[in-house]
Amino acid sequence: MSSLIPCKTLSAKDASGKMIRHDINRRALGANDIHIKISYSGVCHSDIHTARGEWGPKVYPLCVGHEILGRVEQVGPNVASFKVGDIAGVGCFTNSCQHCDECKEGEEQYCSGEGGMHGTYGSVRPEELHPGGVSQGGYASDFVVDANYAIRIPEKMNVAACAPLLCAGITCYSPFKTHNIQAGQSLGVVGLGGLGHMAVKIGNALGCKVTVFSRSPGKEALAREMGASNFVVSTDETAMKAAAKTQHFIYNSIAFPHDIQPYLNCLKARGTIIMVGGVPAGAMPKGSFALIGRGLRVAGSCIGGIRQTQEMIDFCAEHDLLAEIELIEASPEAVDAAWERCIKSDVKFRFVIDTANTMKME
Amino acid sequence: MSSLIPCKTLSAKDASGKMIRHDINRRALGANDIHIKISYSGVCHSDIHTARGEWGPKVYPLCVGHEILGRVEQVGPNVASFKVGDIAGVGCFTNSCQHCDECKEGEEQYCSGEGGMHGTYGSVRPEELHPGGVSQGGYASDFVVDANYAIRIPEKMNVAACAPLLCAGITCYSPFKTHNIQAGQSLGVVGLGGLGHMAVKIGNALGCKVTVFSRSPGKEALAREMGASNFVVSTDETAMKAAAKTQHFIYNSIAFPHDIQPYLNCLKARGTIIMVGGVPAGAMPKGSFALIGRGLRVAGSCIGGIRQTQEMIDFCAEHDLLAEIELIEASPEAVDAAWERCIKSDVKFRFVIDTANTMKME
Repeated sequence: MSSLIPCKTLSAKDASGKMIRHDINRRALGANDIHIKISYSGVCHSDIHTARGEWGPKVYPLCVGHEILGRVEQVGPNVASFKVGDIAGVGCFTNSCQHCDECKEGEEQYCSGEGGMHGTYGSVRPEELHPGGVSQGGYASDFVVDANYAIRIPEKMNVAACAPLLCAGITCYSPFKTHNIQAGQSLGVVGLGGLGHMAVKIGNALGCKVTVFSRSPGKEALAREMGASNFVVSTDETAMKAAAKTQHFIYNSIAFPHDIQPYLNCLKARGTIIMVGGVPAGAMPKGSFALIGRGLRVAGSCIGGIRQTQEMIDFCAEHDLLAEIELIEASPEAVDAAWERCIKSDVKFRFVIDTANTMKME
Repeated sequence: MSSLIPCKTLSAKDASGKMIRHDINRRALGANDIHIKISYSGVCHSDIHTARGEWGPKVYPLCVGHEILGRVEQVGPNVASFKVGDIAGVGCFTNSCQHCDECKEGEEQYCSGEGGMHGTYGSVRPEELHPGGVSQGGYASDFVVDANYAIRIPEKMNVAACAPLLCAGITCYSPFKTHNIQAGQSLGVVGLGGLGHMAVKIGNALGCKVTVFSRSPGKEALAREMGASNFVVSTDETAMKAAAKTQHFIYNSIAFPHDIQPYLNCLKARGTIIMVGGVPAGAMPKGSFALIGRGLRVAGSCIGGIRQTQEMIDFCAEHDLLAEIELIEASPEAVDAAWERCIKSDVKFRFVIDTANTMKME
């Protein structure tokens, strides 16, 4: 009979978000589970919001991180999709009800069962799933997950820059597929950050004509390198006027209140603005008139399902798409510093913790 | 050479919207035009907003009305699609640029050419198109229109209750088709008025399971007669809770500021709320969070293109769908009274002016 799996973590000690080293246990390997030795873990701004209690109160210490990549160390007896030594990825959730319409359709992120999808961290769940009663994320040495909620990572993608695809990559790929964005269509990307830069790369690989809208003229060269064919400084009224009615889709990654009317103006009739930046209040059209006259649509989108995440990884592998990253060591000090820089938007474009090489195992 | 066509109208004398009898001229019949002797003209709430200057200043006297049905009196030499004696319909616009992407795609209502679609009334246009320089609508005896912007009405649909389909009918049918609503899907209809009652009938004919959301419990029997299989009193919190996450689509016809969150709650994940009630400010989600968590969409929709309007009329003819109407006589007093009742929402469900039988021609 298998036993609990000890695990080193970097965890937020309290709502300050400050990191401490903290030892936990993962559940004993179940028949459908795989045990992953984590190599890399991406740093997503959601980690910071959650750890700081900005999206609701949390239990501490809390280990966050939902862009997890590592090598399979053990497999449960029922697992056919992974073998020891394979590379596995875990994204923003680790289970769901498996019975609701959304789960059956492979859109587990929208699970409408009791409690919804099981968030990779900070989710209150039974002790037998998560010793301690709360799910703990990927700033850690080990992970145990139902193999049906893990992503197969091709050997060539066994690199730090693949980890962010498991959240940032799928958050672009999923709405592009769901809204059936086609090669040759125009795709605007608002905000060139962790999500935005992946939207440029994936949109370009899908054959779209990508226009980046950014406040920072200094980002133009980078945007073009990533595949943008056009760059509009969003504070330049003349440039915005010239961009009016040009975009089939706009991917809006801005995660703070802002006026979206200038971007609505840039949509073609029947165009869609895809919202992925969580704003509790604001960043919405003023009234229905703003949408009716030209048949515009505002669509929210949240990560993506397991099947689509696998498809995204395979697509990125095929097209050699990876995130732009800065690698940091697995220490409280390095993560604290990275989070401070994230908050100031001072990151190009994703921090990734080099767990395999730098996490202290003593 | 043909000459101007004299026309009797009922027109708003000024921004009070009060009706007067007023004689105008229609343009001389052009090579591509048809001349229609109007039989029926529906009364749309937009008529009132426009005549009263609520959507911008207007030139008076102004003849409104964009649900026009009548028999073809003359055809221009280039017209192949109509012959004298046919029944023709005219909806909310009478021309467009014919060159932009939207016109080429048959979505002329979203024409992105200079000046956009030519509104059936109140649109400032060249004298040669509209003697007087402003387009004049359908509360009138005669109409002249480019045959490519007229709808062929089957002889069996030569009834007063067909006229409202040209605005209210297409305003339902178009988003249902554009958003690919399927038989077997759940369709909520918010507001059982001129638009809402047609949404119930058309949704039901498309095979949807229709739920009406209304503040008025007294409308349940009517809603079910029209094809609704479910009725939810929107002010009943328990009933609204029971309706949570049930609807693939919601057709929201409310045209004043209101909280749409209770209806968003009733959408299934990835569901769409279709907005057709023009609200300058309000009736929008509070922030992007309201859409992201369940991948919801808010979509504006404006009438429909000519091709789709023809398809809608043919669909309604095939399924014996007509508006519920109250017929009124073509007099200033009758229209004034009808408008007063419209403003109080005291209409079941559309007034239609009986032009052919009651307009004084002396």
